[in-house]
Amino acid sequence: MTSDPLVARLRSSLGEKAVVTDPDVLDSHRNDHATFCSAGVPRVLVRPASTSEVQEVLRASSDYGVPVVTQGARTGLSGAANALDGCLLLSTSRLNQILEVSVEDQVAVVQPGVVNSALSKAVLGQGLFYPPDPSSWEMSTIGGNIATNAGGLCCVKYGVTGDFVRGLEVVLASGEVIRTGRRSVKGVAGYDVTRLIVGSEGTLGVVTEATLALRPAPEAALTAAATFLSIEDGIAAAAAVMAAGLRPSLLEFLDGPTARAIQNYRDMGLPADVGSLLIAQSDRGPRAAEDVEAMAAICSAHGAVDVAVASDAEESRMLLEARRLVNAALEPLGVTLVDDVAVPRSKLVALLDGIAAIGTKYDVLICCPGHVGDGNMHPTVVFDRDDPAAEARALEAFGAVMDLGLALGGTITGEHGIGKLKRQWLAQELGPVGLALQRQLKSVFDPGNLLNPDKLFL
Amino acid sequence: MTSDPLVARLRSSLGEKAVVTDPDVLDSHRNDHATFCSAGVPRVLVRPASTSEVQEVLRASSDYGVPVVTQGARTGLSGAANALDGCLLLSTSRLNQILEVSVEDQVAVVQPGVVNSALSKAVLGQGLFYPPDPSSWEMSTIGGNIATNAGGLCCVKYGVTGDFVRGLEVVLASGEVIRTGRRSVKGVAGYDVTRLIVGSEGTLGVVTEATLALRPAPEAALTAAATFLSIEDGIAAAAAVMAAGLRPSLLEFLDGPTARAIQNYRDMGLPADVGSLLIAQSDRGPRAAEDVEAMAAICSAHGAVDVAVASDAEESRMLLEARRLVNAALEPLGVTLVDDVAVPRSKLVALLDGIAAIGTKYDVLICCPGHVGDGNMHPTVVFDRDDPAAEARALEAFGAVMDLGLALGGTITGEHGIGKLKRQWLAQELGPVGLALQRQLKSVFDPGNLLNPDKLFL
Repeated sequence: MTSDPLVARLRSSLGEKAVVTDPDVLDSHRNDHATFCSAGVPRVLVRPASTSEVQEVLRASSDYGVPVVTQGARTGLSGAANALDGCLLLSTSRLNQILEVSVEDQVAVVQPGVVNSALSKAVLGQGLFYPPDPSSWEMSTIGGNIATNAGGLCCVKYGVTGDFVRGLEVVLASGEVIRTGRRSVKGVAGYDVTRLIVGSEGTLGVVTEATLALRPAPEAALTAAATFLSIEDGIAAAAAVMAAGLRPSLLEFLDGPTARAIQNYRDMGLPADVGSLLIAQSDRGPRAAEDVEAMAAICSAHGAVDVAVASDAEESRMLLEARRLVNAALEPLGVTLVDDVAVPRSKLVALLDGIAAIGTKYDVLICCPGHVGDGNMHPTVVFDRDDPAAEARALEAFGAVMDLGLALGGTITGEHGIGKLKRQWLAQELGPVGLALQRQLKSVFDPGNLLNPDKLFL
Repeated sequence: MTSDPLVARLRSSLGEKAVVTDPDVLDSHRNDHATFCSAGVPRVLVRPASTSEVQEVLRASSDYGVPVVTQGARTGLSGAANALDGCLLLSTSRLNQILEVSVEDQVAVVQPGVVNSALSKAVLGQGLFYPPDPSSWEMSTIGGNIATNAGGLCCVKYGVTGDFVRGLEVVLASGEVIRTGRRSVKGVAGYDVTRLIVGSEGTLGVVTEATLALRPAPEAALTAAATFLSIEDGIAAAAAVMAAGLRPSLLEFLDGPTARAIQNYRDMGLPADVGSLLIAQSDRGPRAAEDVEAMAAICSAHGAVDVAVASDAEESRMLLEARRLVNAALEPLGVTLVDDVAVPRSKLVALLDGIAAIGTKYDVLICCPGHVGDGNMHPTVVFDRDDPAAEARALEAFGAVMDLGLALGGTITGEHGIGKLKRQWLAQELGPVGLALQRQLKSVFDPGNLLNPDKLFL
């Protein structure tokens, strides 16, 4: 028995097992993967199993004036899924059904708690492809991907999560349900509320169903990897690959400090004076071999000191290894604080030069891997956890990187979102009129400010 | 001299020549290309030449409580640009500058009055490609394309206007200016207001600048055209082309009545019992020939009685001729009322069967060309202008087609928008909760309901 009337009501609506108040379980659900974001102590965790149960939860939260934080796999990197004191955590873990995969319409209809890799594998079994592939894809959920408009490695060719969301079912703060968008490829009936929900980080409603676009599965990708002695050469080669219309299905960049950290972690045969690495893929089937040869030739023409081209899937995997090792290689060096600026590609050299200067100014190591084809970099400040002075400098450097991104005509976040982490810079990026407008849009959906309040806006 | 204080204020702000009250000019600006949409008598037409002049106009309209209808080239098909009695018409004709084309960033920055074809040609000169190609592309403006989220022929491969809009400068009803979105490829900072403006038909603000994504120019497309004896075979062949992952850069369908009208207008060698035509293109350069052969083989395998494959650009143009002649061929038959339903591809045969039944029921000719790869059809009701009874039946048939599209899980508009023409069906498509939410979103942007009121919502 509980003395909490909200808990009693939820148990009555959803059943005992769907409502959790065990402090240990609640404690384990306080945070997502963001570092340096505070999290509160939740009042209760609920696991609704249907749209109507989500409606019950939101009606109860509204009646009791209790804020709701929706959580998928909590792999986010900006604290958007962090608990607030006294909040209700709404887990999508039981809303985990793939409701339909249509080969003819090339769509999937899923509940939000479906894990990205589960969907990807299910549709691949039918010759189809769900492209959005955030690094967290083996853990993160489609609902979380929608909430952050997640990107990934292959969005340089295919686009981000939002480009694959046709329509949504959403429970509003009032408990009412809307269906947005469509199942058809095209549709322009009214305002694009689907896109407004995508990337809204749980502040506008709870997504209970998504209709997702799929594509015919491409063939396995082939890889080329090139080593440069400078940042400029690597960036110029990436720009030339994009300009050539080769449509790489992956185009990743590692700067010198990142490459050296990887070489120290595992011998990849990289020279001590490595300036940058570029890794490119093509998945254009019969043309992939020709594409990667062309990309390799572009890299050579831009001063690459070593260029490797894979002739099969296994060699391709090996050439991608350096990219995959980034997190593992940086982890022994200290605490990492991952930024997510995106700039026009023409500003990438200025961004990387500026980041080096910021590292020097604040006396911290900043490694800079990134999705260079999209101009989306992840400058990663690395520092000693046991040194409070280093931590303070790291946080200042983290902010300076965002200021630099904005000064270069870019954005403070290419794919990770605002959450709690970047609220003060959102105000800077949007300006006062834009920010006020966004707050008003939230009020339309959530007049009581109960859906993930304290996120996005300061 | 004028006795109208609004006109006097506008002349003082914008100059004499930018403010038009000549009744003949006003009369010529009352309508867009929609048929069967009423239009009011405007009070004044203004042609601002800068963002700050647009701000002046909106401040004046706000102060005088005068509704504003923004007009591009008035090629829209839903009456969204039609005048209201006593309104101010805001023409974007002098906001017609291409401000920048960046080869490195693959973006263009343009004012809204730039004509689509002018932009397309300007960027092609630099090896770049702006894909959105509504049929009106030689006349329609980028601002109008954004206002309607215009589609076109090549969106089956490349997507619609909204997929190419990175960021906007927008003047709000208050006269304040916001910048939405970004110049970088990716960005998730805050709600996607850019996408909310795209397709909003002039009801949320006045776009004064757009940053558009470009792509490297593809090579000239090659064409295949196939003739079938039934609708089912043509639709099945189209589905098979899409399922094969061939990525056609155009995939158009003409049903039997449309094909026969074209054959009567000009001898294309089509059989009298033609059931449907399919026209497909590939622009994949060296692979295009292989692609169109593969598409032709798919058509043959699906029962095509005649398949032609172009070996060069001139032959490709000739094979597209039938598609280009649709409007000219239907025009002599009577007044045309063009619908714009889009359904999941799996429902296309049901849609076409249902449309035939609607034609029979209401005793009108309905021709059905369409963008079959996207499931977006343009069922066109044709009737005798001098027969009021036929007109009434045609309007009923027009509505019945939308009801059918909705019943098949589709949308009432794939690319033309709601305007005045489809307001009653928008309510049906969105449902009461969704519709109320959209009205509230408008109120955030336009609390005085002065921006294109009387459009979208009844």
